[in-house]
Amino acid sequence: EIVEGVEAALRDGPLKGKRILITSGPTHEPIDPVRYIANRSSGAQGTAIANALAALGADVVFVTGPADAARPRGVEIVEVQSAREMLEAVETALPADAAVFAAAVADWRVASASDSKIKKDGMGKLPVLEFAENPDILATVSQMKAGRPGLVVGFAAETDDVVAHATAKRERKQCDWIVANDVSPETGIMGGSENQVVVISDQGAEAWPRMGKDQVAKRLAAEISTALQE
Amino acid sequence: EIVEGVEAALRDGPLKGKRILITSGPTHEPIDPVRYIANRSSGAQGTAIANALAALGADVVFVTGPADAARPRGVEIVEVQSAREMLEAVETALPADAAVFAAAVADWRVASASDSKIKKDGMGKLPVLEFAENPDILATVSQMKAGRPGLVVGFAAETDDVVAHATAKRERKQCDWIVANDVSPETGIMGGSENQVVVISDQGAEAWPRMGKDQVAKRLAAEISTALQE
Repeated sequence: EIVEGVEAALRDGPLKGKRILITSGPTHEPIDPVRYIANRSSGAQGTAIANALAALGADVVFVTGPADAARPRGVEIVEVQSAREMLEAVETALPADAAVFAAAVADWRVASASDSKIKKDGMGKLPVLEFAENPDILATVSQMKAGRPGLVVGFAAETDDVVAHATAKRERKQCDWIVANDVSPETGIMGGSENQVVVISDQGAEAWPRMGKDQVAKRLAAEISTALQE
Repeated sequence: EIVEGVEAALRDGPLKGKRILITSGPTHEPIDPVRYIANRSSGAQGTAIANALAALGADVVFVTGPADAARPRGVEIVEVQSAREMLEAVETALPADAAVFAAAVADWRVASASDSKIKKDGMGKLPVLEFAENPDILATVSQMKAGRPGLVVGFAAETDDVVAHATAKRERKQCDWIVANDVSPETGIMGGSENQVVVISDQGAEAWPRMGKDQVAKRLAAEISTALQE
């Protein structure tokens, strides 16, 4: 940790002095003390982006759900479980020059989460889970009246009509860029080492070739760096 | 793998020639291509039992859900995701001299699982998940008319009234032993390295002291060995 601190202090690069917030990984939404709803995000892409931004000299705050991926090095790490905890951590971490929302945040939580383990009643009666909508972290930050980061980047994990859905998402959330990809199981992207993204901005949609998640991260970090110099 | 095969062939011990089936880990029940319902089982206790039985010379078949724990060595491993896949793997693996059901199998699956990612509809309408009861693997095997393993051991993860719930579970399922524990978050057992169990048999309930999961595994393996010699 001391070594990392020294590294960070000595580190130079185009993003030196810029504070960048990244969210990454899945969220876990509890059903009861032993069960939860999860998603297949490994945190690999968000972690790679954090490393790429740190390598360009940024001060990175990394807010992560319970992800399998090894944590990035030389950044500030905040571990959370649920979407509501993630929003709280994000609000605490702001202000920032840029914010990248790569986490796969659960849209819904279980409103009727139980304090004790839900048991089979032996009568074949099934549990009823009532859901409540989680806070929309990307929209909340994108639409801040004061203290909005200068650049807000969202992610869109789609299984069909990627560009249309992601373009609509960008307008609805009011973020600056959307990094969209197709997470259908047959693409092997979720949990895999490669990614194929389309970046949507006010300039339209730019399809990047399929490449390693590290390469996607480096290119995105370079574009963030350029945008923050403008 | 060749080395392990040689090890297994050379291995001696009181369980030599005995085939023992173990299930371990959580199951994942899909909601849609990216979301699933999971539970906090790490697979640590089941893995430790597999290693302990193999060390006594048993031929172990290890059927595991997507667990974090490193896989046991020198055993046959079958990886599954859902409860239904686990039952199928168990039925394929039988007959066996003993079966130990240490997996935390989901009681329910999502009957209405979707082939495409469920999206927010923008109107604040919440998804409705319909559940169906999963097959009861422990009861299915305990109540087999032909080919039932000579010793069937179930597990009961409880959050309250451990002995009463586990004793009732043993009678309901018709297994021989139940290894019961308290998985309330404050015990630190689920995901931790220690366990504190009560073993229920036709002799009543025997509370074991809190000890490492490896120690629980060794003691249980020794008792299984004794029971199979009788």
